[in-house]
Amino acid sequence: VNSWGRIFRISLWGESHGPAVGVLLDGCPAGLPLTADAFAADLSRRKSGLSGTSARQEGDRPLIKSGMFNDQTTGAPILIEFPNADVDSAPYEKIKDTPRPGHADWTAHEKFHGHNDYRGGGHFSGRLTVGLVAAGVIAKKIIQPARVQAQILEIGGQGEYQAALERAAAGGDSLGGIVECRVAQVPVGLGEPFFDAAESLIAHIVWAIPGIMGLEFGAGFASARMAGSEFNDELVEAAGKTATNHTGGCNGGITNGNELVFRVAIKPTASIARPQKTINLRTGAPEQIRIEGRHDACIALRMPVVLEAATAIVLADLLLLRRAMNHEQ
Amino acid sequence: VNSWGRIFRISLWGESHGPAVGVLLDGCPAGLPLTADAFAADLSRRKSGLSGTSARQEGDRPLIKSGMFNDQTTGAPILIEFPNADVDSAPYEKIKDTPRPGHADWTAHEKFHGHNDYRGGGHFSGRLTVGLVAAGVIAKKIIQPARVQAQILEIGGQGEYQAALERAAAGGDSLGGIVECRVAQVPVGLGEPFFDAAESLIAHIVWAIPGIMGLEFGAGFASARMAGSEFNDELVEAAGKTATNHTGGCNGGITNGNELVFRVAIKPTASIARPQKTINLRTGAPEQIRIEGRHDACIALRMPVVLEAATAIVLADLLLLRRAMNHEQ
Amino acid sequence: VNSWGRIFRISLWGESHGPAVGVLLDGCPAGLPLTADAFAADLSRRKSGLSGTSARQEGDRPLIKSGMFNDQTTGAPILIEFPNADVDSAPYEKIKDTPRPGHADWTAHEKFHGHNDYRGGGHFSGRLTVGLVAAGVIAKKIIQPARVQAQILEIGGQGEYQAALERAAAGGDSLGGIVECRVAQVPVGLGEPFFDAAESLIAHIVWAIPGIMGLEFGAGFASARMAGSEFNDELVEAAGKTATNHTGGCNGGITNGNELVFRVAIKPTASIARPQKTINLRTGAPEQIRIEGRHDACIALRMPVVLEAATAIVLADLLLLRRAMNHEQ
Amino acid sequence: VNSWGRIFRISLWGESHGPAVGVLLDGCPAGLPLTADAFAADLSRRKSGLSGTSARQEGDRPLIKSGMFNDQTTGAPILIEFPNADVDSAPYEKIKDTPRPGHADWTAHEKFHGHNDYRGGGHFSGRLTVGLVAAGVIAKKIIQPARVQAQILEIGGQGEYQAALERAAAGGDSLGGIVECRVAQVPVGLGEPFFDAAESLIAHIVWAIPGIMGLEFGAGFASARMAGSEFNDELVEAAGKTATNHTGGCNGGITNGNELVFRVAIKPTASIARPQKTINLRTGAPEQIRIEGRHDACIALRMPVVLEAATAIVLADLLLLRRAMNHEQ
Repeated sequence: VNSWGRIFRISLWGESHGPAVGVLLDGCPAGLPLTADAFAADLSRRKSGLSGTSARQEGDRPLIKSGMFNDQTTGAPILIEFPNADVDSAPYEKIKDTPRPGHADWTAHEKFHGHNDYRGGGHFSGRLTVGLVAAGVIAKKIIQPARVQAQILEIGGQGEYQAALERAAAGGDSLGGIVECRVAQVPVGLGEPFFDAAESLIAHIVWAIPGIMGLEFGAGFASARMAGSEFNDELVEAAGKTATNHTGGCNGGITNGNELVFRVAIKPTASIARPQKTINLRTGAPEQIRIEGRHDACIALRMPVVLEAATAIVLADLLLLRRAMNHEQ
Repeated sequence: VNSWGRIFRISLWGESHGPAVGVLLDGCPAGLPLTADAFAADLSRRKSGLSGTSARQEGDRPLIKSGMFNDQTTGAPILIEFPNADVDSAPYEKIKDTPRPGHADWTAHEKFHGHNDYRGGGHFSGRLTVGLVAAGVIAKKIIQPARVQAQILEIGGQGEYQAALERAAAGGDSLGGIVECRVAQVPVGLGEPFFDAAESLIAHIVWAIPGIMGLEFGAGFASARMAGSEFNDELVEAAGKTATNHTGGCNGGITNGNELVFRVAIKPTASIARPQKTINLRTGAPEQIRIEGRHDACIALRMPVVLEAATAIVLADLLLLRRAMNHEQ
Repeated sequence: VNSWGRIFRISLWGESHGPAVGVLLDGCPAGLPLTADAFAADLSRRKSGLSGTSARQEGDRPLIKSGMFNDQTTGAPILIEFPNADVDSAPYEKIKDTPRPGHADWTAHEKFHGHNDYRGGGHFSGRLTVGLVAAGVIAKKIIQPARVQAQILEIGGQGEYQAALERAAAGGDSLGGIVECRVAQVPVGLGEPFFDAAESLIAHIVWAIPGIMGLEFGAGFASARMAGSEFNDELVEAAGKTATNHTGGCNGGITNGNELVFRVAIKPTASIARPQKTINLRTGAPEQIRIEGRHDACIALRMPVVLEAATAIVLADLLLLRRAMNHEQ
Repeated sequence: VNSWGRIFRISLWGESHGPAVGVLLDGCPAGLPLTADAFAADLSRRKSGLSGTSARQEGDRPLIKSGMFNDQTTGAPILIEFPNADVDSAPYEKIKDTPRPGHADWTAHEKFHGHNDYRGGGHFSGRLTVGLVAAGVIAKKIIQPARVQAQILEIGGQGEYQAALERAAAGGDSLGGIVECRVAQVPVGLGEPFFDAAESLIAHIVWAIPGIMGLEFGAGFASARMAGSEFNDELVEAAGKTATNHTGGCNGGITNGNELVFRVAIKPTASIARPQKTINLRTGAPEQIRIEGRHDACIALRMPVVLEAATAIVLADLLLLRRAMNHEQ
């Protein structure tokens, strides 16, 4: 399904070259102050036009079609719509039968028996993350005073990556990267044993974002080479503070009040200008394709705000759930 | 919640030192041949007593309480119960107020306001994975001819790890490790765009297993340092075979028929014999604890069969869902 | 939540006097032929302007914003939007603090702490059923050759009700009614034991429709006065045909292939022109209100197509689920 | 699925003649006082042996296998098991190929391709409601001070029904009945617009109980013959009290604080001693069967406590959900 969440529940819809994309958000408490302007900052962080990202003018002004009244949430479902503009579908007609390497063209064609909207990746486009970012703006309000902040750690293996990006773009190539996300002031007790572990939910929603290849919490893969005596985070305060934070803020799937820390590995942009081999779906013959138009040289550049949104959405859902279960509150 | 899945749905229940642990499995098709013996092989792979694992005799003989008739599944919910035996709760009384570093003792105490069963980690114990393995035995039948196979890549950073394990155990310490899981003959078209991406579901269920610190598919974290021209898997057959498999078997969250490949990083066992610092929950004062009894020197050793189970469960659920959506079938 | 369904999943959104109302439909198989015109017949059956129904011109032309391509479903979520037009919110400002008897004004105000959109009933308006009808058009295609057909049995206690309706409308009053729904050629085996019994799901979704007061399957309330020897439907064909159909087409929550039959009782329209007593929310004092404008004299008149849609949606979901569970298929 | 609920979530499992039946209850807040004795009163109200009910000694002593510690709930899933005893499956072998009229024998056989456990109705047995009653005991604690109380209104059409029952039993026949359920002190604001309307959820869970034929809230079917001026409940207090209670305690699917009132129609017991016609599943030929053993002459007699449980479970789930959504609380 295209929905996620138990109480604070989001659904993404739309296609890259259809009339619009958007998000339906259910389970948002009533009375949150909210205007269309509140989305501007995060949407612009995600937007095209940054150095190294594509030139498409996405027209990311949200149309709020329901769930808002007098600049507040009403408690009813919130539908946010982003009309698609500046769309040129012509190049996709040419490559319709030649699935692009690294894209979902071939799997979507197989899964939907050729009925998928293939233009610009259709429903599989990174364009869909605009709805995630919009929902994240609302989630961030719900989880206050917790604050989510993500940043790029490296692009193409480097912390100072501007030159590498320009080289890749000039050469018709693309780069991957690593983004780190941290949440400060995260409340204690978010997450449920086993299947609704905080890490499970974050992992679930993070991997819904196109392009994610790896995820690690706290010490992550390095933990595999640590001894227990080195890894274990010793408790230093009754309120939960630990001397180290190798688990990245959770024990048993439940937040322990220390900073929540995770990193994701993002693959290089699939659309590159260089010629690539593929198979023609109609003829079955090998073919060489060249993807036209301008594309992000590195999708990791747009990721920080998308990961922040994903994280805030998970924490909002868990926070509402914890509120449900707390007698004492 | 302690449930996972949309059609093939599992729920884990029980505590380490309670009467029993087990699994409730709903949405299993009728008519699968199944006897209590079918569980023996996988349960014994998970079992205690291996070199480097704890001496607890877990008595992992499954009692099937429902959903089976004449050695076949009936289509009704399957309840599998594993009575707990060989349980000595005395050591836990001593450490009841001193949360063990690296365990969920403190978070469980906070989340459940002190009402959690703290003996042996209670509901947070790795013991609960026995139910996951049992459900996995059934899931593996459903996904045939697809075959899931997991193996240890390294323990404590080494492929030949026996000596390191013995050293750690002798020194009252523990080690982490990395396990790789591969699925051959995985059908094309499993997974849904965005929130039910195959990787999302695998990530969700994998992170429900205690001790997971990182997960990567295909080229994983290394992707972040690759160029697009290097990373993209070129299609070489109309049936979906690609020249390389850097994505690890999915595009757009949907299996592409190539081998499904992922790796997980597992932290060192939290219970170690060395003295550790913690805080006394009643007094608020710092305290030193020493965990008694024998414990696994490395929980990664038990992980391959647990990860196989988790993966098979996800694929079974997605396979049933794909069957629902296919007209042509 | 404002969502229903396990595989074929619908979400309703919008407010009566907001920019639009609509439905998000997830889990629809790819390749169903579908154009905006396909909705016209059912939408017009639901529409205003019939004798006895209100004069509001609802502009029920569906805008399909996603999930369609080349006049077929794509397998991606389908968003259908109905912009609101012909809306005059002025009368609602006057009665904002005086909840209308029989409406959700007071409960919505309490539940959402005064943040609900009160204009025209907001999210609680019968206007929302337009999305249900739209989803029903698609569901009816999925369940073919099964055919759902609902009809009015009585209005104000009478089978020939035109004069009664005119009398009620002239007197500023309203009438209730009973609608019967029948499904022919319903496949055997839809529904699951206990919580997903076919009747449970139909009851769930039927009671989501504003104005429902009672529901009975087959012999319904009359069963309570029958003896077992009279009630039991004897099997007369191995294919499941029974001599009588007192259960209304299900045994144990599972369709038995006989006609599915149920009836619903619908209350009289809440909005009436006569003066009514209420309490002023700001002052706490009793007050008399008079609801202006024209309103349906009988909402039961619009119900047949809404109930057909609800029923088709349930059967579509159960049909997809049965397909998932059938090996043999 | 055999699960119900969003936060307070129950799953029923087991077969009439298998090793046990029971319930898995997830999402129960920690710290509720609870002992095995707490179940005795409600379980005995449901039990066999009452005049007019069957002689099977069900041994309804609950075994609590998880989720309890020191006589309190822990917040972890609660598994309650009722071992089956006093079971004689021999009679069912004889009628294995001749589905009993009024039972789920034929539909279960078709749905599960003959793999269902047919003994005593298997998973479709009314025996399964013992788990519902057990979960209801816990739910009743959660919703306090709200109190659910159900009572028999009529059996075989009569309020004084003892003689009618004895006549039916003596004649090898059975009777239906009507039960009314009322909830006093129900909190305002339970239920969500549309698909989680309080009535929708009650209807859903009520129809999961074997034998339900009709359900009506408040004035119910009589509403269909009332005028709006007669039906509308006028508000007489700012706290929500209405002069009448024709809606039965909800507006727009949300509780309004007045008494919650509904009635259900229950069919006569399907198992009767008189000869009945059916079809032999192996030969396809008509056959006459006679059901042996003693059976309830009227299942409605056991229903009050089952309906109370179902209602309390719904209200508990909605109460926890409302708690999640209330900032101000």
